[in-house]
Amino acid sequence: MIKIGIIGLGTVGSKVYDLIISNKKLIERKIGTELEILYGCDIDRNKFKNKKFIFTNNWKDIVYNSDIDIVVELIGGKDLAKTIIIESLKNKKHIVTANKAVLSENWDEIFNLARDNKKLVYFEASVGAGIPIIQALNEGLAANKIDYIAGILNGTTNYILTKMLSENISFDKALSQAQKNGFAEMNPSLDIKGIDTAHKLSILASITYSNWIKLDNIYIEGIDKIELSDMKYVKEEFGYTVKLLGIVRKINNKLLLEVRPCLVSDSSPFVSVRNEFNAILVKGDKCGEILFYGKGAGGSPAASAVASDIMFLARQIAAGVAGNIPYVSYDPDKKLSFLSNEENFGNYYLRFTTVDKPGVLSKISGILGKNNVSIASVYQKEPLNKKFKTADIILLTHYVKEKSVIDSIRVIDKLDIIKSNTKLLKIEQ
Amino acid sequence: MIKIGIIGLGTVGSKVYDLIISNKKLIERKIGTELEILYGCDIDRNKFKNKKFIFTNNWKDIVYNSDIDIVVELIGGKDLAKTIIIESLKNKKHIVTANKAVLSENWDEIFNLARDNKKLVYFEASVGAGIPIIQALNEGLAANKIDYIAGILNGTTNYILTKMLSENISFDKALSQAQKNGFAEMNPSLDIKGIDTAHKLSILASITYSNWIKLDNIYIEGIDKIELSDMKYVKEEFGYTVKLLGIVRKINNKLLLEVRPCLVSDSSPFVSVRNEFNAILVKGDKCGEILFYGKGAGGSPAASAVASDIMFLARQIAAGVAGNIPYVSYDPDKKLSFLSNEENFGNYYLRFTTVDKPGVLSKISGILGKNNVSIASVYQKEPLNKKFKTADIILLTHYVKEKSVIDSIRVIDKLDIIKSNTKLLKIEQ
Repeated sequence: MIKIGIIGLGTVGSKVYDLIISNKKLIERKIGTELEILYGCDIDRNKFKNKKFIFTNNWKDIVYNSDIDIVVELIGGKDLAKTIIIESLKNKKHIVTANKAVLSENWDEIFNLARDNKKLVYFEASVGAGIPIIQALNEGLAANKIDYIAGILNGTTNYILTKMLSENISFDKALSQAQKNGFAEMNPSLDIKGIDTAHKLSILASITYSNWIKLDNIYIEGIDKIELSDMKYVKEEFGYTVKLLGIVRKINNKLLLEVRPCLVSDSSPFVSVRNEFNAILVKGDKCGEILFYGKGAGGSPAASAVASDIMFLARQIAAGVAGNIPYVSYDPDKKLSFLSNEENFGNYYLRFTTVDKPGVLSKISGILGKNNVSIASVYQKEPLNKKFKTADIILLTHYVKEKSVIDSIRVIDKLDIIKSNTKLLKIEQ
Repeated sequence: MIKIGIIGLGTVGSKVYDLIISNKKLIERKIGTELEILYGCDIDRNKFKNKKFIFTNNWKDIVYNSDIDIVVELIGGKDLAKTIIIESLKNKKHIVTANKAVLSENWDEIFNLARDNKKLVYFEASVGAGIPIIQALNEGLAANKIDYIAGILNGTTNYILTKMLSENISFDKALSQAQKNGFAEMNPSLDIKGIDTAHKLSILASITYSNWIKLDNIYIEGIDKIELSDMKYVKEEFGYTVKLLGIVRKINNKLLLEVRPCLVSDSSPFVSVRNEFNAILVKGDKCGEILFYGKGAGGSPAASAVASDIMFLARQIAAGVAGNIPYVSYDPDKKLSFLSNEENFGNYYLRFTTVDKPGVLSKISGILGKNNVSIASVYQKEPLNKKFKTADIILLTHYVKEKSVIDSIRVIDKLDIIKSNTKLLKIEQ
């Protein structure tokens, strides 16, 4: 009999409980042993209602309990969650967690400790909720050299971007709608600033490249500066949709990681990923492009991943082999080199808000030319509000160095023909 | 050091060799031990060229060799491949295979033998080539009650159907084009009759429902009777695309399995799956709908799966734990009940080829009405060739029992107003 303790009985934790109770027969047949939720822990005693386990509001009752085989950490946050994971490993417990922030920021400490104690840390729910992408990178695609991963990894921001365009509303309106419908938290900054996506990208990249890839290695830009007008311009004039992507690519044996709103074309698999859905595209040298798609948020999809992790662990514990082989490939001695975003290349979308006078385009394109930014197409939009006497000039660039574009904008934005900061978005092919 | 023997050095086998040689450093770092291809076996000695292993044309040199840890069976076909797998298990070898036919038709014997000998059989490449769907069903989604799996599982037929519509050509022309381009075999009947899809569906279902689900349990219809005119009618008039799907669904605790050309709508994820690509949609009670997409055919994608299987096995062998836990959940005592296609329900497309006279529609709809087949929409097409004086009447039904539709057609096709056999296709929502 395998005994587990669940710490954190919120959205995910309570769904994990429900799942294990409702699918108990199927689970125990598949793992070949009995599974018992011995303890549940939460600071809120109301979470205990109608549940068949010993309730505690002290995590130590679980972590230091010799009856417990697996600690399921689902409290979120950082400090206490980290303590629970570290203390559990030290006390010879296996771990299942959905906590991307703690993993991403403490990869080194956690996986060294897991290896030293021959214990396993499973974390399928930390990226893409129920989509089994962690396992795929760890095992199913393990033989490939992977030179590209791109994903819509955050349900909140994808929900907001979808609603902005489909309901013709501003970022602020879409955000408050998302908060009202439970798709965004009251403090949404981790999501909308791209940090959550970066945590997830860091996990995917760390697995893929067998060493810790930190947030510091990722260029991060959120969606909070995205304007509806840009979304409409790119859709109507060029057939592009704005999506927040997390991307890692290998260029000449160096890694470039970025989280940013990107323009994707109508033929991209990301276009049809709407609302709270997630999708991850992995490109391997042998498997080619593989796409994984599903619900990236919500209690039940996350519980699906957590419970599947528990099952896989339970089978190994029952067979007496859990921890003999580490789950993730982690080799701290492996050297990784990174490219900064200064060295990024791509096609870019630029929107200049200018005075509505002759000669403006010539000035702008002159500065771009001087910086070797060649222009693929130009589009001039009548001012939306004529009394401002401004015009929007939109340019798509050829494949150019991002630094050249940024240098150009720095000069252009100082010109007195420019009425507000120039908007820059990358096109992801 | 883990030693393997590859039996069959054709398209997949030679790519497995190439992969292991080219990605050796990555592979050995991830498995934490050395991996050697000790033997290669093929009836064709030319396959030996430039390869660093001991060549043999006798599979027994590998299967009965005490140095070999893993036998990689890639010869295809049935009888000899089965013998190799069975003899290898008896001789305490682990197996990696891509052979869907042998697995599907000998599930019972193979997995009983594997369990009794504490050996593992891995077969990720048998379905969807490089797409890690076997592992996902086995592990990543294991906690879910799964009531629906649908997939485009055969690259050849999907290539043919894609080309028929995009190049406006008949089935026969598309088939010979596929053969010319290496996407169909010279004897294509396993593919075009739906047998290959059924083998793969049987594997997915057997894993999901923890017992052997045979071809006998699957209603199978190929694409060889598909006419271009039907593909064009459904696309232009109703926005449907014809795809060969393998589907298993759970209805009141019974399983209904079918392989057949289906009409899928423009909002279906299957519409954009073109040419040799595969896609599999899995619906679990907790994870919701998860879609897996990638190249479903070709040497390299299959080699990606085979090599990843070898790696996972090698790690377990090196840690001394391989075979302690069976890979697939197989419980021969688990009772499964099936629904026959007679008990199928759905929306259907019917095309009647009739004489071009008044009163014809009334006769047809009268018979359908008597059988409780209610009509959702009707569309009458001018005869393509006026000299035949025939007309095509196309009907889409409401949600009805398939048996009622078939009973109606049986009666209608005997009427002298009917000029050729009525075409029936299911609409998959």
